[in-house]
Amino acid sequence: MNPAAPSGMPADATPGARAQAWLTRFETSQRDGPPAATAALFDDACYWRDLVSYTWNIRTFESREAIADMLAARAADVAPSAFALEGEATEAGGVVEAWFTFETRVSRGRGLLRLKATPDGDRAWTLLTTMVELKGHEEKKGPRRIKGVEHGIHPGRKSWLEQKDEAHARLGHEEQPYVVIIGGGQGGIALGARLKRLGVPALIIEKNPRPGDSWRNRYKSLHLHDPVWYDHLPYLPFPDDWPVFAAKDKIGDWLEHYTRIMELDYWGSTVAEKAEWDEATQSWTVRVLRDGQPLTLRPRQLVFALGVSGYPHIPQIPGAERFEGVQVHSSKHRTAEQWRGKKAVVLGSNNSAHDICAALWENGCDVTMIQRSSTHIAPSDSLMELALGGLYSEQALAQGIDHHKADLIFASVPYKIMHTFHIPVYEAMKVRDADLYARLEKAGFLLDFGEDGSGLFMKYLRRGSGYYIDVGASELVADGRIKLRSRVSIEHINPRSVTLTDGSELEADLLVYATGYGSMNHWLADLVSPEVADRVGKCWGLGSATTKDPGPWEGELRNMWKPTQVPQLWIHGGNLHQSRHYSQFLALQLKARHAGLDTPVYQLAPSHHRR
Amino acid sequence: MNPAAPSGMPADATPGARAQAWLTRFETSQRDGPPAATAALFDDACYWRDLVSYTWNIRTFESREAIADMLAARAADVAPSAFALEGEATEAGGVVEAWFTFETRVSRGRGLLRLKATPDGDRAWTLLTTMVELKGHEEKKGPRRIKGVEHGIHPGRKSWLEQKDEAHARLGHEEQPYVVIIGGGQGGIALGARLKRLGVPALIIEKNPRPGDSWRNRYKSLHLHDPVWYDHLPYLPFPDDWPVFAAKDKIGDWLEHYTRIMELDYWGSTVAEKAEWDEATQSWTVRVLRDGQPLTLRPRQLVFALGVSGYPHIPQIPGAERFEGVQVHSSKHRTAEQWRGKKAVVLGSNNSAHDICAALWENGCDVTMIQRSSTHIAPSDSLMELALGGLYSEQALAQGIDHHKADLIFASVPYKIMHTFHIPVYEAMKVRDADLYARLEKAGFLLDFGEDGSGLFMKYLRRGSGYYIDVGASELVADGRIKLRSRVSIEHINPRSVTLTDGSELEADLLVYATGYGSMNHWLADLVSPEVADRVGKCWGLGSATTKDPGPWEGELRNMWKPTQVPQLWIHGGNLHQSRHYSQFLALQLKARHAGLDTPVYQLAPSHHRR
Repeated sequence: MNPAAPSGMPADATPGARAQAWLTRFETSQRDGPPAATAALFDDACYWRDLVSYTWNIRTFESREAIADMLAARAADVAPSAFALEGEATEAGGVVEAWFTFETRVSRGRGLLRLKATPDGDRAWTLLTTMVELKGHEEKKGPRRIKGVEHGIHPGRKSWLEQKDEAHARLGHEEQPYVVIIGGGQGGIALGARLKRLGVPALIIEKNPRPGDSWRNRYKSLHLHDPVWYDHLPYLPFPDDWPVFAAKDKIGDWLEHYTRIMELDYWGSTVAEKAEWDEATQSWTVRVLRDGQPLTLRPRQLVFALGVSGYPHIPQIPGAERFEGVQVHSSKHRTAEQWRGKKAVVLGSNNSAHDICAALWENGCDVTMIQRSSTHIAPSDSLMELALGGLYSEQALAQGIDHHKADLIFASVPYKIMHTFHIPVYEAMKVRDADLYARLEKAGFLLDFGEDGSGLFMKYLRRGSGYYIDVGASELVADGRIKLRSRVSIEHINPRSVTLTDGSELEADLLVYATGYGSMNHWLADLVSPEVADRVGKCWGLGSATTKDPGPWEGELRNMWKPTQVPQLWIHGGNLHQSRHYSQFLALQLKARHAGLDTPVYQLAPSHHRR
Repeated sequence: MNPAAPSGMPADATPGARAQAWLTRFETSQRDGPPAATAALFDDACYWRDLVSYTWNIRTFESREAIADMLAARAADVAPSAFALEGEATEAGGVVEAWFTFETRVSRGRGLLRLKATPDGDRAWTLLTTMVELKGHEEKKGPRRIKGVEHGIHPGRKSWLEQKDEAHARLGHEEQPYVVIIGGGQGGIALGARLKRLGVPALIIEKNPRPGDSWRNRYKSLHLHDPVWYDHLPYLPFPDDWPVFAAKDKIGDWLEHYTRIMELDYWGSTVAEKAEWDEATQSWTVRVLRDGQPLTLRPRQLVFALGVSGYPHIPQIPGAERFEGVQVHSSKHRTAEQWRGKKAVVLGSNNSAHDICAALWENGCDVTMIQRSSTHIAPSDSLMELALGGLYSEQALAQGIDHHKADLIFASVPYKIMHTFHIPVYEAMKVRDADLYARLEKAGFLLDFGEDGSGLFMKYLRRGSGYYIDVGASELVADGRIKLRSRVSIEHINPRSVTLTDGSELEADLLVYATGYGSMNHWLADLVSPEVADRVGKCWGLGSATTKDPGPWEGELRNMWKPTQVPQLWIHGGNLHQSRHYSQFLALQLKARHAGLDTPVYQLAPSHHRR
């Protein structure tokens, strides 16, 4: 028996009936009632995350008051309607979970609702609303697909190939793209694919010659650290024999084929030199060098998709200029073979540092890792089984959770409470991998699990660094095959060695700076201006007031995939999962503007930090 | 109420219960009973089509006697078991239709059963048994997918790229492929993909430089005549925005990306010069020119995948050598633009003739079609709605019939009675398109619907020619924009004109021979020897005793995808649908031999016709 059925609902109502009853009241109340009445349908602790549908923004509302304010401002314009359950609602642990579809005046959407029974009836705990498509601007897929050939007779008709070649040749010359995407990695490519389907003229510019080169150019031993189920691009999932962890060159090739198959306008060997806002035309002037030839693009919208890392960060260490060996940032390190029998020092202890140390050791190099501060180690198998497996795995697929569904479940967990879902995962990991952790500590390795014990993914969201997904190197560190010096850094660099902050000295033929990257909006400072970079402000991070993620609390990733303080300037990026999922919402925002729809942004996020 | 429930079954048994009861008796009887008892479970009119599972062959048994004979020979070795319904059985028009899975000693299979109620209980009308996978040799997909990286530490390990490059470089040189596939069009590529997944070393050789060139090289206006739902390749379906009818270059590009994504060993610019059987090593010696360099391959299995057409057929017409214009076979005709204001004569009236005439007319050329004999015209929309729509369409998808399921339903209709399913389709087409047909006849066009009115697909299976899927050109023929001369041929060719068999003369700057292709096994005669070609005998066709398909009745396509009279020589090909579906069964036959399994072929088809 259901202990607290809402008034009017039978005590033994099914989860589906309870969810439908709530949705009906929610819809009616939005239409007829004051915003406070709709907000009263939410529990004391409540979260409504909206991806574009209600707000033309990406926002989470974390109280009834915030919800009421939003509805007061937006409900009349949004005109929400047609809320309908999708599939079977379920109940577990006292929480009813229900998928639903809905409409707004201009769009169709999908949502996920979690209800809790309270003495006053069922109340919403979490609500996710997402925009799926704009009415009248649907993708031409499935029953809407194009015929591909105009049957009948059309004198002078051009072939598909001629039309494609001509369109590619025009764009950027006779015809200006509506969107320029700077950066042709997974982010730019996924967004480009979405825009192509939506009929928004977009041009991707990429400094490397070929799509996928940003993966190909990394160190040779690199594989994806995330498993295949998490990594699909939009529209064309990997074949079902794709390995769990694809090699960098395989992903590079896939990105290249994908770019061609999707017929994206993609200029390789093209460097963005300068972007300026032209107030008169309300568009950007982007100066590029394409194969060394200068050219000016004039898009209305400018998207930075240069990765969530900024420029490679290399600490200034006295004596570096006198080093007679090779010193290189991890992003420029390629192969390990030539270091056989030599000595290497790797400064840093996160993913790249571990991968590079392991490859050097495998190739017979004497390698020492310098660990300056603690690192979170998450063994890959444990991470897959404990953290990702419920959503992204063969087991999830067998339970009907494909990556489309998983993305929405993932997105439905409010950032404010996300760490509470993660802490138990890492508690379990501590037990499961206790032996490895003990041996690492014995070897002197400084471990952490994040400031609040919430582990890897929260670190990724808050600061984008501070962890290693262990695929084997930790064992080498634990048993001393990779030598470890922790709680120290490099004090100064000598011609053939480095001197550490504890006064000891290490010989070195190779010095790798696995010291991470600068802030993402350094790109903006260089390509646009320091003033514009400062107006946009810090990108990424939630405002969690933990290391490298200063408050105030933002509740969403700063400046990502949503309007920024600089009009018509957008930031896109993230891992393959984020590039896939959030490109949907950025593409819909761009499409709406391209189509001339009114897109009033609710609560444009202020900028609290410059970098 | 069910008028004739089998003994022991309640009168109101569900279709599922009836099918399960039959399958249980079928399984028990095969194990315990005499073959005649199992055959007695089939109706008076009955058909059992087996794709490899029982017979290591592709065979249809068309009587209880034939079934009993096969079981007597094969049941003990096959050891069939584990027959189990898959999904819901259905009943319509007195026929119960049920999907099932089953096993043999060495394989797992899937089947489709159709039962009819008889006074003696439910009896099988049609039965399809197909091999899905060999036990112990399953594809590494889904839960069996490879990890892609060996976690842990492996000194000297090679990257995915190095391993791939080395394997590609070895194959055909240090390491001989188990299979050589001559021909790298859709057939060779689909089979290559299946073999790759099964771990059978296979090398595709193709005379054109790039995969897809066999499409790219056709006339510019060409689009697929079959719709997208029918055309998927194995493992990587087209994205859901793929056009209904893709342009030739788009298909060409897809085949190229597909070949690379599937990591096939594919040698472009490679010509097979000679293949000889080496009795001593029981393997083939294949001399090829790769980029002009001679090289010898020594595969155990040789597959011809050169298309279901043989060499271009050009009739010998007196005076051809004196023609001062351009004369070209349809396969070599490329573009129409340069014929503006000129006169063209196209000899032939099937698909290519119509497409080429239409493109010439669209480009302002004065074009005349010479129709020597009657042609079947099937308007594309009607064909899609009346013939293909139930299996391959958005509507079919909405009813849960994807192309995997559709392929099996399609394969389950015995060739012996297939025409009876098709005749009503074309009866409906005659009504639906009566106006077009009347106007075509008024213009002098000679129409037919196949000798027994069974239309396009039966013509394709029986003779591979004799039709046009109308995408617009028939309208041009009907209203005289494409000029038509029918019931005539070209008597002789003059320097600037052709003289027809009725004595009339047509000026001609361009003469296109849309006169079809020779027999498929001309390839064999040239590449191996006339003797071997004669031993294999005629390929394609069912033995229907209709035009170009002489009897005796074979019941399957001659020599296609199954053992031939020449050991270790195979023929593969067909449209995209057939290349996709039948590559599964050819690949499993090759895999079984590669794995050293015993593969006794039941009733190897004799060769009744040489070409």
